[in-house]
Amino acid sequence: MLGRINHIAIAVPDIAAASATYRDTLGAKVSAPQLLPEHGVTVVFIELPNTKVELLEPLGDASPISAFLAKNPDGGMHHICYEVDDLMAARDRLIEAGARVLGNGEPKIGAHGKPVLFLHPKDFFGTLIELEQSADVSTAV
Amino acid sequence: MLGRINHIAIAVPDIAAASATYRDTLGAKVSAPQLLPEHGVTVVFIELPNTKVELLEPLGDASPISAFLAKNPDGGMHHICYEVDDLMAARDRLIEAGARVLGNGEPKIGAHGKPVLFLHPKDFFGTLIELEQSADVSTAV
Repeated sequence: MLGRINHIAIAVPDIAAASATYRDTLGAKVSAPQLLPEHGVTVVFIELPNTKVELLEPLGDASPISAFLAKNPDGGMHHICYEVDDLMAARDRLIEAGARVLGNGEPKIGAHGKPVLFLHPKDFFGTLIELEQSADVSTAV
Repeated sequence: MLGRINHIAIAVPDIAAASATYRDTLGAKVSAPQLLPEHGVTVVFIELPNTKVELLEPLGDASPISAFLAKNPDGGMHHICYEVDDLMAARDRLIEAGARVLGNGEPKIGAHGKPVLFLHPKDFFGTLIELEQSADVSTAV
C-alpha cells in the first residue's frame, strides 16, 4: 500500500530563518515561500535528489501546526507523507484495521492539489502520517 | 551539500508491534529486526520505492534513543539522515557556520557501516540531522 515518500514536513517558527539555514549552511536547494491560506501554512520546498522536505510556518489564526509549535517552540519533524495508488481503498483498509482517519474521514485537497488523508499518530507509534493519492492513477483502477 | 535522504528514523517502544502495523496495516515491506548492540538499538528497515524508514527500539542500558522515548512514550520521528559526498568537508563547513556537531566532532561508523555525524537539533529548528558519507566516494576526492 505505502508507495514513495512524497515529503517529510518540518514545522518551524520562522520560515525565513529556516530557509536561510537550509540554503546557506546545509547547501540545499530551497524554493521561494508559498502562502497557502486555505491550509493555514506558508511552505517552502527543499528539493533533494529522491524526495523533498517541506518547511511549514503557521499562517493565520487557525493554523493546523500552531499547537505543535506551542509544544515544540524550536520546531520539529511534523509528519511524513506517503503516496498511495488508491486513496479510497487505503482509507477503507485502514478503517477496517481499526486505524483512525482524522477529520470526517473524507479526503481533502492537499497542498499539492491532490486528495490527502491524515492518520491518527496514536495508531502509528507517535508519527503523523499523511497519505496522498499518487499521480499515477492508472494503477488505481 | 545535502544529497539524497538515506532514511527517516522513527523511535518506537515496541518494534515487533510497530513492524506488524507497518506490514499488515500499512502494507509496507518490512525487514527482519537486526540487533545492533554497538549502536544501542534494534532496527527494522521499511523499504519504500525512493528511500527507507528505519524503526528503532532501544537495546541495552545506554541506548541513544531512551531519553527520546522517555519524553515521547508512544514513539515518534527521531531524525533524518542525508547523504553527503564529502563528510569531512561538510563537517568543516558546518563548524565554520557555527553549527554544533554532536560528540567529539569525529565521524563514527553508523548502522550502515559508513561514517556518520549528527548535528545539534537546536541549530536546525528542532530536527536532529544525521549526515552519512555517500557511497559514491568518487565525487569526494
